[in-house]
Amino acid sequence: MNAAQIAAAVQSGETTAVAQVEATLGRIAAYDGIQPQIWISRAKPEAILAAARAVDARVAAGEHLPLAGVPYAAKDNIDVTGFETTAACPAFAYRPEASATVTARLAAAGAICMGKTNLDQFATGLVGVRSPYGIPRNAFNRAYVSGGSSSGSAVAVAAGLVPIALGTDTAGSGRVPAAFNHLVGFKPTKGRWSTSGVVPACRSIDCVTVFAQTTAEAALEDSVLAAFDPADPWSKPLANRALTPRRIGVPLRRQRQFFGDAESEYFYSRALDTLASFAEIVEIDIAPLQEAAQLLYGGPWVAERTAAMAQILKTNPDAVDPTVRAVVEAGWDKTAVETFNGIYRLAELKRHADLMWGELDALAFPTTGTTYRVAELAAAPIALNSNLGAYTNFVNLLDMAALAVPAGTRHNRTGFGITLIGPADTDRALLDLADAYLAEASLAPPPKLDLAKNPECHMQTVKLVVVGAHLKDMPLHWQLTSREATFVEATHTAPTYRLYAMADSVPPKPALVHSPEGAAIAVEVYELGVAEFGSFTVEVPAPLAIGTVTLADGTSVKGFVAEPRALAGAEDITHLGGWRAYIAQKN
Amino acid sequence: MNAAQIAAAVQSGETTAVAQVEATLGRIAAYDGIQPQIWISRAKPEAILAAARAVDARVAAGEHLPLAGVPYAAKDNIDVTGFETTAACPAFAYRPEASATVTARLAAAGAICMGKTNLDQFATGLVGVRSPYGIPRNAFNRAYVSGGSSSGSAVAVAAGLVPIALGTDTAGSGRVPAAFNHLVGFKPTKGRWSTSGVVPACRSIDCVTVFAQTTAEAALEDSVLAAFDPADPWSKPLANRALTPRRIGVPLRRQRQFFGDAESEYFYSRALDTLASFAEIVEIDIAPLQEAAQLLYGGPWVAERTAAMAQILKTNPDAVDPTVRAVVEAGWDKTAVETFNGIYRLAELKRHADLMWGELDALAFPTTGTTYRVAELAAAPIALNSNLGAYTNFVNLLDMAALAVPAGTRHNRTGFGITLIGPADTDRALLDLADAYLAEASLAPPPKLDLAKNPECHMQTVKLVVVGAHLKDMPLHWQLTSREATFVEATHTAPTYRLYAMADSVPPKPALVHSPEGAAIAVEVYELGVAEFGSFTVEVPAPLAIGTVTLADGTSVKGFVAEPRALAGAEDITHLGGWRAYIAQKN
Repeated sequence: MNAAQIAAAVQSGETTAVAQVEATLGRIAAYDGIQPQIWISRAKPEAILAAARAVDARVAAGEHLPLAGVPYAAKDNIDVTGFETTAACPAFAYRPEASATVTARLAAAGAICMGKTNLDQFATGLVGVRSPYGIPRNAFNRAYVSGGSSSGSAVAVAAGLVPIALGTDTAGSGRVPAAFNHLVGFKPTKGRWSTSGVVPACRSIDCVTVFAQTTAEAALEDSVLAAFDPADPWSKPLANRALTPRRIGVPLRRQRQFFGDAESEYFYSRALDTLASFAEIVEIDIAPLQEAAQLLYGGPWVAERTAAMAQILKTNPDAVDPTVRAVVEAGWDKTAVETFNGIYRLAELKRHADLMWGELDALAFPTTGTTYRVAELAAAPIALNSNLGAYTNFVNLLDMAALAVPAGTRHNRTGFGITLIGPADTDRALLDLADAYLAEASLAPPPKLDLAKNPECHMQTVKLVVVGAHLKDMPLHWQLTSREATFVEATHTAPTYRLYAMADSVPPKPALVHSPEGAAIAVEVYELGVAEFGSFTVEVPAPLAIGTVTLADGTSVKGFVAEPRALAGAEDITHLGGWRAYIAQKN
Repeated sequence: MNAAQIAAAVQSGETTAVAQVEATLGRIAAYDGIQPQIWISRAKPEAILAAARAVDARVAAGEHLPLAGVPYAAKDNIDVTGFETTAACPAFAYRPEASATVTARLAAAGAICMGKTNLDQFATGLVGVRSPYGIPRNAFNRAYVSGGSSSGSAVAVAAGLVPIALGTDTAGSGRVPAAFNHLVGFKPTKGRWSTSGVVPACRSIDCVTVFAQTTAEAALEDSVLAAFDPADPWSKPLANRALTPRRIGVPLRRQRQFFGDAESEYFYSRALDTLASFAEIVEIDIAPLQEAAQLLYGGPWVAERTAAMAQILKTNPDAVDPTVRAVVEAGWDKTAVETFNGIYRLAELKRHADLMWGELDALAFPTTGTTYRVAELAAAPIALNSNLGAYTNFVNLLDMAALAVPAGTRHNRTGFGITLIGPADTDRALLDLADAYLAEASLAPPPKLDLAKNPECHMQTVKLVVVGAHLKDMPLHWQLTSREATFVEATHTAPTYRLYAMADSVPPKPALVHSPEGAAIAVEVYELGVAEFGSFTVEVPAPLAIGTVTLADGTSVKGFVAEPRALAGAEDITHLGGWRAYIAQKN
């Protein structure tokens, strides 16, 4: 049951809040066998049951509670009484005296907080890997990142533990994990939902968000949370601006970045085809939006994070995640003059965006251009994180509302999503636009959850023999490292191969050819995921191919072979015993 | 004729724009004998006449021009084609390719720019003394500052040269000179009048303003200038918010600062009595407003000025006024973290102010607590400038509209004013409130202009003999320096005086007593303005008095004498020949 259905059923007496939270506790306990690290803390069952009984009593007393008995999770940078708030930094933890305005409003509406979820520390990241509480992984393929910073909240909803979960969003933290986990991620206009009681990231642009399976649940959440809050200096009187999606802006083709992810590119074009069935798709130059995005980490706004973390950076810097610290400490060096110059430039870009809204009704951008494996993020934690923000970073700075919705399922089962973006106060209108899009798109339901018991080894792996340009330190070796291939051994083939240096191959590559009059050729063996092996194989150019190679120990594994045409004009180098020796001699 | 009358008369054919500018040129030429330094540049008469003929032709062709033939002056940090823009810094001067939006709109409405007026350099100051183009002085008493930074514009209107003049206002620059010169100074809501084409001071809070003799003229100006301008990133769609002045906020008594100026204190209380005739006067704690004010120069916002002046500060710092430079260079050391912390605090203070508007309809504050002589400012250029901003600095930071109106005439003929302040978009409502106040106040008309030919010696001066605690380096000497008294000579009295050290006088003071059996007593002679002499005399405590003293050369001048009771218990120190010798012996 989704949140609206639960509330209606509790309200009508079909079920009780107690029954709902009991079922939820069961689901959560089961998922603890898969990814306990999506939580930082959880309420004790007694406390949850007591809260549920209180809701049931209120309903029995005649109160109408729009979220009666709806279990939810809150990102652990949002205060909830009874829980510590950690922002994923144990040394920062404190016990709040009161709930944040948003969680207080949820409680008043009958919702019950099951626990606090993991996040990229201090909400700094779009990945989910930057936490000492473990790495929440994509609910559909745990080799992949969950997206962040609202990692645990997204997975908790995607895994069906709770129907709704609160996140926060400064650079895209409420949208990116939604996309990767086949969810709706609603980032309201700044000031629509109070941020009072939320640990700041960039205080001037932080927003509270919600993850849900449906737009209807996001709308329900909005009806409870959208309200002026005098305790939040950025809170605004409630306003709703209409939006008729006649003209929808998309990036110029040359500006679309998918980072080599052809599946995402395809899903995006399909999403635009869907939107084109009821709106005009208008290609726009997104350079001004990209320039605004650059201000977030490349410009002075990173100093907002430094300001928010100033005390712990000064007194206990080692308690901060090294990547987060590297990002945030850059803010110390920014000056007031740079800051005001940034504010001026942002004001100009905001004006540009406002004029854009005279020509366009909404934007429809990829939520991200691609997704990454956890191990890839570990290898390039800042650069790949930045790639994930390519379409999200500008939104809050330019005071826009955004709604991430599903738009496709990659072969690796992770989600591709698009984000519908409108000017401030078009929040409800974006939800309507999303409904129109989703109705037209008729997407397949999300794939099965990744519930394999061993979170690190759930994938089938394949051993691969390489013999030439993919050897360690050779020009194409990166095609293995970028796929998290692990080195197994350096060995030789059975003594039944000849090795040729192909003519005109760039970079120079050999052809390994089975021959009874052969020799043992030096090779290296790697192991990689089956999907990675597949994508690797896709990239092997003719006349080479992936076939079967017999090793010195008599085993047969997958590896590089060659078509006969590989020998046209080729030089037989078998006598050298391997490709490394040939290259050394050549240089 | 005021601006509205001129426009109506030109429009109806009663007069012509040409006749108006000819008369204006005559007035300006006459005032050049008094204060030519209120101008930085002026249009050539031919150009002005050509512009006037063009206006007459437009009127003749049937155009309706709301400012037909109205001569005006523009502060020289606002671009007008045909004029250099200097910001009162010759090294900064440039020739703009186009007029600022505001001056272009004035031209379109039929107004004619007579010239560009002097200002505190880069609009940094509330005084008018910070300019290499000379010091515009108060139009009613040239010993006093005009107020700034829009010094020349205020004097041009106060002196009757032009009916309206544009200023700018960041910290109070469009209000303080209005108060001192018996004018209306209208500072619209930020974003109501475009700042495109205006040299920035603090770009995020700068406003264009107008000086006029009447609120009707300010309203006329607003009707021409209030408009959305896409070229100004801070420009807003036009909005007018009503304001019924039921409850008017004023500072708690203990928070009112008049810097010893009893006249200002009296005029302020009288203004509140006037307002009380139609509204409830509510004393409020203005600490949050004062805290916001501190952010302007004491906090990060000074770095906006640094950013605006970065190039000249780096390449040609000696071209910058030393006081301005001292103020603005402080901005280099401000950090981004301080800036964002300032932004957060300001947001909280803004929220406080917004909640205040739920309780109050408007504020009525002194525009300034006092005024200063030019020479006083020269002695303490930063501290006294700060005093002048005590009631103005917070307004733009907190996004308020403000209207400075006259509220009294000091004995020195300078103006005291109050400022009516409302939330954003109450601009027109404040003009109505001012009308209600002014109708009730029935103020005396402004005093006569100070048109003495010698700008430095227009005051009657008085020689004053001092003999004791007012001698150079003695404890009360400051009572002379603070009145710009100039040292004439050290001499002696005629040999017909006795000198006594009075009993129980704090600080120790002598009594000079004429006596046939006397001696020549050492004295010093000072010269000071008659008004200053008067106020000095006011402060002389019994049993001392200002009488007539005969000097060694036989001349009689004003000086310290004593009542007989001064001698009760006094020690005759005539034999020492003077007070200095007595003090030296005593120590």
